[in-house]
Amino acid sequence: MSRKGRVTIPTDENYVEGTKKIAELWGADAVRDCDGTHLPKNALEIAEKVYNTYFVVRGDNAWADNHTDELQSVLLITDPVLATKDGELVIELLKGYSKDQLCMNEENPKKYWQVFDRTTCEEVLTWDYLGDGKVKVTGVQAYHQYTVNFFAKNCWDSTQMYNYITNNWNIEKHKVMEPRFEATFEHIKDNMRKWCENNKNVNVCRYTTFLYHFFLVFDERNEQKHVDWFGYPMTASPRAFDAFEKEYGYEIKSEDIVANGTYHSHYTNPTKKFLDYMEFTEKYVTKTVRELVDIVHAEGKEAMMFLGDSWIGTEPYGDYFKDMNLDAVVGSVGGGVTVRMLSEIPHVKYHEGRFLPYFFPDTFFEGNEGPAIAELNRNWVTARRAMLRKPLDRMGFGGYLQLAAEFPGFIQRAAEICDEFRDICDAAGDAKPYCGATVAVLNSWGKKRSWMGHMVAHELWYQMAYSYQGVYEALSGLGVDVKFISFDDILKNGIEKDIDVIINVGDEGTAFSGGEYWNNPELVTMLRKWVAEGHGLIGVGEPTAYQKGGRLFQLADVLGVDEEKGFTLSENKYNIEKKAHFITADTTSEIDYGEGKKNVYALKGAEVLDIEISDRFIRNVNVGEVKLAANQYGKGRGVYIAGLPYNPQNSRMLLRAIFWSCNKEKEMQKAFSTNAVTDCAYYPATGKYAIINNTDQEQKTVFYDVNGKAEEMTLKPNSVAWRNA
Amino acid sequence: MSRKGRVTIPTDENYVEGTKKIAELWGADAVRDCDGTHLPKNALEIAEKVYNTYFVVRGDNAWADNHTDELQSVLLITDPVLATKDGELVIELLKGYSKDQLCMNEENPKKYWQVFDRTTCEEVLTWDYLGDGKVKVTGVQAYHQYTVNFFAKNCWDSTQMYNYITNNWNIEKHKVMEPRFEATFEHIKDNMRKWCENNKNVNVCRYTTFLYHFFLVFDERNEQKHVDWFGYPMTASPRAFDAFEKEYGYEIKSEDIVANGTYHSHYTNPTKKFLDYMEFTEKYVTKTVRELVDIVHAEGKEAMMFLGDSWIGTEPYGDYFKDMNLDAVVGSVGGGVTVRMLSEIPHVKYHEGRFLPYFFPDTFFEGNEGPAIAELNRNWVTARRAMLRKPLDRMGFGGYLQLAAEFPGFIQRAAEICDEFRDICDAAGDAKPYCGATVAVLNSWGKKRSWMGHMVAHELWYQMAYSYQGVYEALSGLGVDVKFISFDDILKNGIEKDIDVIINVGDEGTAFSGGEYWNNPELVTMLRKWVAEGHGLIGVGEPTAYQKGGRLFQLADVLGVDEEKGFTLSENKYNIEKKAHFITADTTSEIDYGEGKKNVYALKGAEVLDIEISDRFIRNVNVGEVKLAANQYGKGRGVYIAGLPYNPQNSRMLLRAIFWSCNKEKEMQKAFSTNAVTDCAYYPATGKYAIINNTDQEQKTVFYDVNGKAEEMTLKPNSVAWRNA
Repeated sequence: MSRKGRVTIPTDENYVEGTKKIAELWGADAVRDCDGTHLPKNALEIAEKVYNTYFVVRGDNAWADNHTDELQSVLLITDPVLATKDGELVIELLKGYSKDQLCMNEENPKKYWQVFDRTTCEEVLTWDYLGDGKVKVTGVQAYHQYTVNFFAKNCWDSTQMYNYITNNWNIEKHKVMEPRFEATFEHIKDNMRKWCENNKNVNVCRYTTFLYHFFLVFDERNEQKHVDWFGYPMTASPRAFDAFEKEYGYEIKSEDIVANGTYHSHYTNPTKKFLDYMEFTEKYVTKTVRELVDIVHAEGKEAMMFLGDSWIGTEPYGDYFKDMNLDAVVGSVGGGVTVRMLSEIPHVKYHEGRFLPYFFPDTFFEGNEGPAIAELNRNWVTARRAMLRKPLDRMGFGGYLQLAAEFPGFIQRAAEICDEFRDICDAAGDAKPYCGATVAVLNSWGKKRSWMGHMVAHELWYQMAYSYQGVYEALSGLGVDVKFISFDDILKNGIEKDIDVIINVGDEGTAFSGGEYWNNPELVTMLRKWVAEGHGLIGVGEPTAYQKGGRLFQLADVLGVDEEKGFTLSENKYNIEKKAHFITADTTSEIDYGEGKKNVYALKGAEVLDIEISDRFIRNVNVGEVKLAANQYGKGRGVYIAGLPYNPQNSRMLLRAIFWSCNKEKEMQKAFSTNAVTDCAYYPATGKYAIINNTDQEQKTVFYDVNGKAEEMTLKPNSVAWRNA
Repeated sequence: MSRKGRVTIPTDENYVEGTKKIAELWGADAVRDCDGTHLPKNALEIAEKVYNTYFVVRGDNAWADNHTDELQSVLLITDPVLATKDGELVIELLKGYSKDQLCMNEENPKKYWQVFDRTTCEEVLTWDYLGDGKVKVTGVQAYHQYTVNFFAKNCWDSTQMYNYITNNWNIEKHKVMEPRFEATFEHIKDNMRKWCENNKNVNVCRYTTFLYHFFLVFDERNEQKHVDWFGYPMTASPRAFDAFEKEYGYEIKSEDIVANGTYHSHYTNPTKKFLDYMEFTEKYVTKTVRELVDIVHAEGKEAMMFLGDSWIGTEPYGDYFKDMNLDAVVGSVGGGVTVRMLSEIPHVKYHEGRFLPYFFPDTFFEGNEGPAIAELNRNWVTARRAMLRKPLDRMGFGGYLQLAAEFPGFIQRAAEICDEFRDICDAAGDAKPYCGATVAVLNSWGKKRSWMGHMVAHELWYQMAYSYQGVYEALSGLGVDVKFISFDDILKNGIEKDIDVIINVGDEGTAFSGGEYWNNPELVTMLRKWVAEGHGLIGVGEPTAYQKGGRLFQLADVLGVDEEKGFTLSENKYNIEKKAHFITADTTSEIDYGEGKKNVYALKGAEVLDIEISDRFIRNVNVGEVKLAANQYGKGRGVYIAGLPYNPQNSRMLLRAIFWSCNKEKEMQKAFSTNAVTDCAYYPATGKYAIINNTDQEQKTVFYDVNGKAEEMTLKPNSVAWRNA
């Protein structure tokens, strides 16, 4: 197998010889610069590919300071302010916001801002901007609360501000230019051309990133106030609103984006207007970036997008992304979900992942080689499950290579991982691995936010997220095909023929479970029919939740469970006996449902697989807290799971639920490894099987090939074993 | 103090002499019969008062069997039935219901029944009754669910059925007559007259109870299917519907009561139509019972109502109860709440509580004297806190006195308790004890369901109830005045001047927290203003919950907390530091919030008194789970508590929250006992203080009189200590 290529390493002008040695060992064919490092002049002598980071809109303070009217805006809402008497109320707009980051955008407030009585939810028109960041509202009513939606100027790039504060930097604060101003956009293009001229030694422009930062504003103490990796408020500006009206034929209002202070977060069902606004922004970002990419391409360089920072409006799974004509995407790898989120992005030539640990002094200090290697292994093994399903094309590291070089054991282990990575790429080829079933995750976002569900602030382990995010993490490495579909998709086009199982996961009212969509009988009956005909529905958390017709879960009949909200407490629930089942056959320890769900009970006929019953209740009036249930529905089946944080046992349980729900139990033991802390992938195109051990301990397992032939195996810690068909 | 009177004991024709001896010892002045016992002929020689149980509508099978058209009805809904293809669907109405209890009422189905498509929530008119308990629906759509609301006949009294099944009886099954039929009502009155004639030895008619049983139907296995102590479906019948239309000028429909299968339970916000129907029923029950009471009174006997069994339509705190002209109510005492629920019923001359244990062989068997005494003490001590605030006028026991007589220690302890009870009655007199503050519980029911909030199936320890029911149990014995007010009350008449603190307790959407009421800005602003002027608002669970304007808790600003539902996860919550506070000053062990609430976070400025933070979350993106918070709001204050099951520590915490929230901290230490397992009451009219020990261990405490003068005290187990002003 190949022992060179597909690997990017950081370098520095002071560490050329060391870079060459490690590049040789790791088979690296690309080098990159990082925060605090500079490419050597002769970088192309070290590697075939040389990446240089590039900021499109930030850091050109010379221009920004001379064009303060052409800085970026951000659309904000004030905290609700209480009127304590009838009459007038003065609201300080930037109260609670960082004065270092934000200042007022005073352009035509009466046109672009809005005042709301949040107690009645009605817009208030009797107000004036007093200047100096203050709005006076007249005709207010005592003990109503009022808010102002307003535009501020974004005077400090959010990411730089974060790094600056976190690392106690003392450097120039990057201002952010708005490309919707013609002069600024021309200047941006000039900058791009100049960069090309000045960087002949670079053949990949690594954009970090493009035009608009994800929504990240700081509070008066310069701590993070609002951070939404999917948020659009930093794309909004008077210019954008004007352009929207011209293009879409109707006026977009601040509240269409602010939406009661939820800012139409990822968790909120998008409205038609908000979807229009997203599309409008995507089209603008695409068209604008394309002009820059064309400049780069004209110089024979590649254009690479970093999926982070100012990625808003790119929507890599959207309809416009392809028109940017990018060559590559790169992103940080946190686990299997981020691998698949990156590796499946369409319309680019290659996908790269930056692995952990980052070569910074917080990990690479004297005596810390063991933990550094452990982090390397953990990161690699977590990601590898997903790599087996759909590998990235390239991997890389970031930081100060010189620091890593101090740990020879680390350098050695990384070299092995680079080889293993190339082996996987070779085995997988361009063809799909074998999939025993096809699963579709159904939510309001569908394909547009593939692999992005329940992500808050960058795939952090987040309350109200991790119990659901584990579903995607499990799926990222399971031997099934995974699709993301939206309610609108299936309402318009029906359910694709190849889908075996649909998963609906999330809390009541969110974009992930679907909220108001479940008020649509067409959706409800379509899914009932589809399941009854022999398919599977898996619900996690509060699936299909919408209070109507005496039910919270509109597909309670399919799932076999509903959630008690207090209105039917008087109806006794007798189905509380726990039964053994195919789904829980590999369960060896108590199941972790994460935050789980309270007050879910089983309907008659459903099979209860796990239930929590408090000693505090009298048996025959107990509501029960069903955590896991299975239900036959016509020829199909429903499964309910209260929550599914990622761990190997839960991942296996989900796999079993998938095969059981679509009546394919007998198909599960094909290209399969019995031990739940292992995974198996089969590549029909190359005839290879990979069996991986996801732990740092030796594991015994039984491997079944695609014909069901068994082999007992012992897997070394963290290892991958290969078999030929 | 008096050593005779206020006590009722059970007797039996075979145990006259024993009864006399115990009556003497306990100072009993009344005897009663029970299930399985009969009054002696000369009962009036044993006691001044002789009670005899009386059933109004059940047990007269001779009449019932000859008037099968005049049996009671019950309004039911079928389980939802799925249509698997377009066309016809046949629904079996009594499927899942007890055939022993119920049979069809086939009177004019097209007039009284309704069929619904529960998938669209629309009524379906294309159906026919096929006879034999089957409805054929035509024009059904595939994969929609259908239900039928229909009338069944109630062929077996629910309570008798329960006792019969529980005790394996083999006796005649009591049928239930419907007094809305003229002939039957005349017969019921005849029965009453005959009873008076035949029971000259009885001077109290103890009705068990009147006309309509609380909603209790059994399933196909004769297990309880639906049990709602507040439910009205057993009052409904074609006759009742006809009468309603005549009286109210509009047609009441089955769905107005069935309400998606919730049957307008106690937890559901009542609709205008449902309130009309309740009032209609109350008026009918009152008028009908009054005729019976008049017969009893004409014979010089008293009329006593047992608050249980067939109490529906009496609503003792309603507007019509007084017109029944009853002399007394009696009920089972489970704790402080049931004491107050009984003792505060207006318009009767006296209130009696039946204490535990019941003298049945399950407790009174050889060698079990210790546990029997323990149960007696526990029941008495739990109830006594409430008795100090508003004593019952009488107490009693039930069962076979002869069994209790086998335990001399029990008889002795009961005698002491009877004395203690009389002491309390004497000290309390008719005047109110001293109250340091006035508290009002605010919900959709208000005064009409005083002390009845969060009761499910008879004050059982119930999921989704006990964490809130503890609030009422705590209040029942605290040194504060307690009122029950409804949203309609305060919207119409404002908040009464004497109220210091309002408590809103319950889950989102229920009648207890208020649901849609919180969509009314008038209510929201009225309470904000009222608190800001110097009053207190205490919210427990999901107080003021209604998703609107970016908030779940509409009074989040007052309470200082809101509940995250996922839409503002991206807004960082920094207020997570726990602070010491007046409210938690007596807390010595971990606070029990019962089922508690998830994802509640503190707003800026609120004081967090208790919070749960999982190790699973990264600090600066943590939502936090605030369990207890305090918040200054203008001159007033808000307090949030996640849940409050009853225990002494929680009760004390609630007391402190009450005094703190209305700025009366300094008033708390008046007529007060410091030890949280003790309580203190002061009777200004008689100048007496009672200090009680609620445990079976000796307790030290500091007693403060109403002037703040302190005295260190040691209280014997279960004891009451008296002091004079």
